[in-house]
Amino acid sequence: MNSVAYPYRFAGRMRALKPSAIRELLKATVTPDVISFAGGLPAPELFPVESLEGVVRDILAEDGPAALQYGTSEGHLPLRAWVCGHLARTSGMAATSDQVLITNGSQQGLDLIAKALVDPGDVVVVENPAYVGALQAFNSYQAEIIGVPGDSDGIRTDLLAETLSRLPRPPKFLYLIPNFQNPTGTSLSAGRRAEVVKIAAAHGVPIVEDDPYGLLRYSGPDVPPLASLPGAQSVVYLGTSSKILAPGLRIAWLVATDSGLMERLIAAKQAADLHTSGFAQRVVCGFFRLPGALERHVGRLRAAYALRRDAMLQALEEHLPGECEWTRPNGGLFLWVRLPAGTDGVELLGAAAREKVSFVPGEPFWVGRPALNTMRLNFSNAPEDRIREGVGRLGALIRARAAGAYFAESIG
Amino acid sequence: MNSVAYPYRFAGRMRALKPSAIRELLKATVTPDVISFAGGLPAPELFPVESLEGVVRDILAEDGPAALQYGTSEGHLPLRAWVCGHLARTSGMAATSDQVLITNGSQQGLDLIAKALVDPGDVVVVENPAYVGALQAFNSYQAEIIGVPGDSDGIRTDLLAETLSRLPRPPKFLYLIPNFQNPTGTSLSAGRRAEVVKIAAAHGVPIVEDDPYGLLRYSGPDVPPLASLPGAQSVVYLGTSSKILAPGLRIAWLVATDSGLMERLIAAKQAADLHTSGFAQRVVCGFFRLPGALERHVGRLRAAYALRRDAMLQALEEHLPGECEWTRPNGGLFLWVRLPAGTDGVELLGAAAREKVSFVPGEPFWVGRPALNTMRLNFSNAPEDRIREGVGRLGALIRARAAGAYFAESIG
Repeated sequence: MNSVAYPYRFAGRMRALKPSAIRELLKATVTPDVISFAGGLPAPELFPVESLEGVVRDILAEDGPAALQYGTSEGHLPLRAWVCGHLARTSGMAATSDQVLITNGSQQGLDLIAKALVDPGDVVVVENPAYVGALQAFNSYQAEIIGVPGDSDGIRTDLLAETLSRLPRPPKFLYLIPNFQNPTGTSLSAGRRAEVVKIAAAHGVPIVEDDPYGLLRYSGPDVPPLASLPGAQSVVYLGTSSKILAPGLRIAWLVATDSGLMERLIAAKQAADLHTSGFAQRVVCGFFRLPGALERHVGRLRAAYALRRDAMLQALEEHLPGECEWTRPNGGLFLWVRLPAGTDGVELLGAAAREKVSFVPGEPFWVGRPALNTMRLNFSNAPEDRIREGVGRLGALIRARAAGAYFAESIG
Repeated sequence: MNSVAYPYRFAGRMRALKPSAIRELLKATVTPDVISFAGGLPAPELFPVESLEGVVRDILAEDGPAALQYGTSEGHLPLRAWVCGHLARTSGMAATSDQVLITNGSQQGLDLIAKALVDPGDVVVVENPAYVGALQAFNSYQAEIIGVPGDSDGIRTDLLAETLSRLPRPPKFLYLIPNFQNPTGTSLSAGRRAEVVKIAAAHGVPIVEDDPYGLLRYSGPDVPPLASLPGAQSVVYLGTSSKILAPGLRIAWLVATDSGLMERLIAAKQAADLHTSGFAQRVVCGFFRLPGALERHVGRLRAAYALRRDAMLQALEEHLPGECEWTRPNGGLFLWVRLPAGTDGVELLGAAAREKVSFVPGEPFWVGRPALNTMRLNFSNAPEDRIREGVGRLGALIRARAAGAYFAESIG
């Protein structure tokens, strides 16, 4: 996808903790009349509210005081046990409960990994472009981040090997979203997964495998996670309920088979916030343990999101000028658009906001020099007709930009 | 209380993230047959489970999708507005909603403050002994922590002024729990509060005022928080629902009037875990907005905890040998015991665990060289008869220790 030549860097907490101009722009678009392709928001009309009502009633009636009291930093044991069974069923991973830590969303998993492992100036390697929240988490511990370009099969393993060979000492870890990456929507191919594991092992580099979207596949065959591959000794695997149940509960899990690392992660969790809400953990656990509930719910999500993905792909084909390119994800929530050369995604967002459409410009996802003519589009949040309407407006703006129109307007 | 001569230091993340021997000892005592004076646990039988059932039902029925969706990093606006009204009513503080950030317990508030402000090697000043969770939070960003001794009126302002004068550059902040401090139970007197504000202003040192227990006063007059005093420009104030409602919901708030600092704290929150559970925030907000509910609940807690405090003070008088000393808190959850010289609190815990009693040894609360002959006792969790029974067992052990008995046994 991205042909930027070689790894770029940025470092230091100041960049990460600066209030972002893009964030301010996006805040202004959070109103019901705006068609949003911006956040990674699940479709709110599909939340299983009724099932959750029953679950919550049962928790308060049967386990109220324990749910409301302090709990362990590791997390609610029945939920950790459920995670083990779930991973064994869905991806052939063998983990025990004491290898599972419950976190406030996977974002906190990333924060804790950095808290446990990163000293200022330590190197972390990511696929470029990368999930902006991961960059923020690693930067908040003053990591030096190196980006390795990806293409339609995920991170470029040739460039990864070259990068690791060049580094004076191994990076603290390699961070990847192998399934339906955020922001590009592309997946790491089965062949490259094996290569990544081999290269990382050869260089003694642990892997952080972030898998928020793995169950949300709409086409193509399942590909096993890195953590399940032979030779994958040092993989920390992150899963979450945010995209398959409800992000507002903030319940995710982190699996680390290295007991020394797990001890440090638990200590990091304790320092960060003692433990994750025992009440919210029980709500998620209760839902997941309702017979067939998760399978039915994920089935509904897949069906709905596949239609939305298809609607967006078709609308892009119809409305975007010929110079644009975009990814065709087999799952997840996002696709990634390369705009005509010279079109700045941030500038386009300013114009789009006036037309009541929003998205995230590509800029913040890039490590090093950004390709400004990029944007991330979410297709899970809006229904098909709104997707078609929103992409139509974006297409008109991009064509107008090519003719110099909205640029002049935005100056005036 | 503590006569250790002068500020001591420790630094570096490794200490904070080491699995703690004390933690392991305490884990073994979390069973129903153990009388626990260890954690800062509210009385579980007093949780307002029925009121919360109604609140949760209403949230899911009326606001389900929003409660389950992603939310803002700042937190749920109605809760932030409630916090402002609450602080105005209870402590004369004037804050606006945009000066309030919702966190996962105050522990996360401490973590975010350190994330936003502390670079490795930066100095933070605390009262010594200090809340161990604060030490862990600051250490996880590699702060250098300096402890200033306190006495029965809180931090020694003469030693604070002396310490600040000696430092080559101002510390990043001064951390205090002015009401019913953890671990000692002592409070900063009104006179010293004014002095602390004056000294901090003179040296350009911001104050982090942690106030989890302020509403849990059982005797003596209320004393206004530092944040409400004239001249207190740079105070970050932390409050929480953990001790006045339920810690398992993990909902707390942080008030910062400095807008630049608040921007950095929000960015730190975003990097740490995006936002706090919108569902849990709505549960807390819903309860707090039930007319009179908080006042009634806090009234019940005060009545119950006052009896427990009194039962513990009386039992200590009755069972502990004459060489012991302890604090007599006007509120909160803890008191602090100085054991006979030569009695090691960690060793005593080992013996106490065998007698089915637990507490937290003083050691981890100390900055620098610990006074090992100290322990923290919680009086909120167990009913009076269990408190009397547990203190009786502790007293017997301490007397036996003086006679050399359990020490020999623990070697064998």
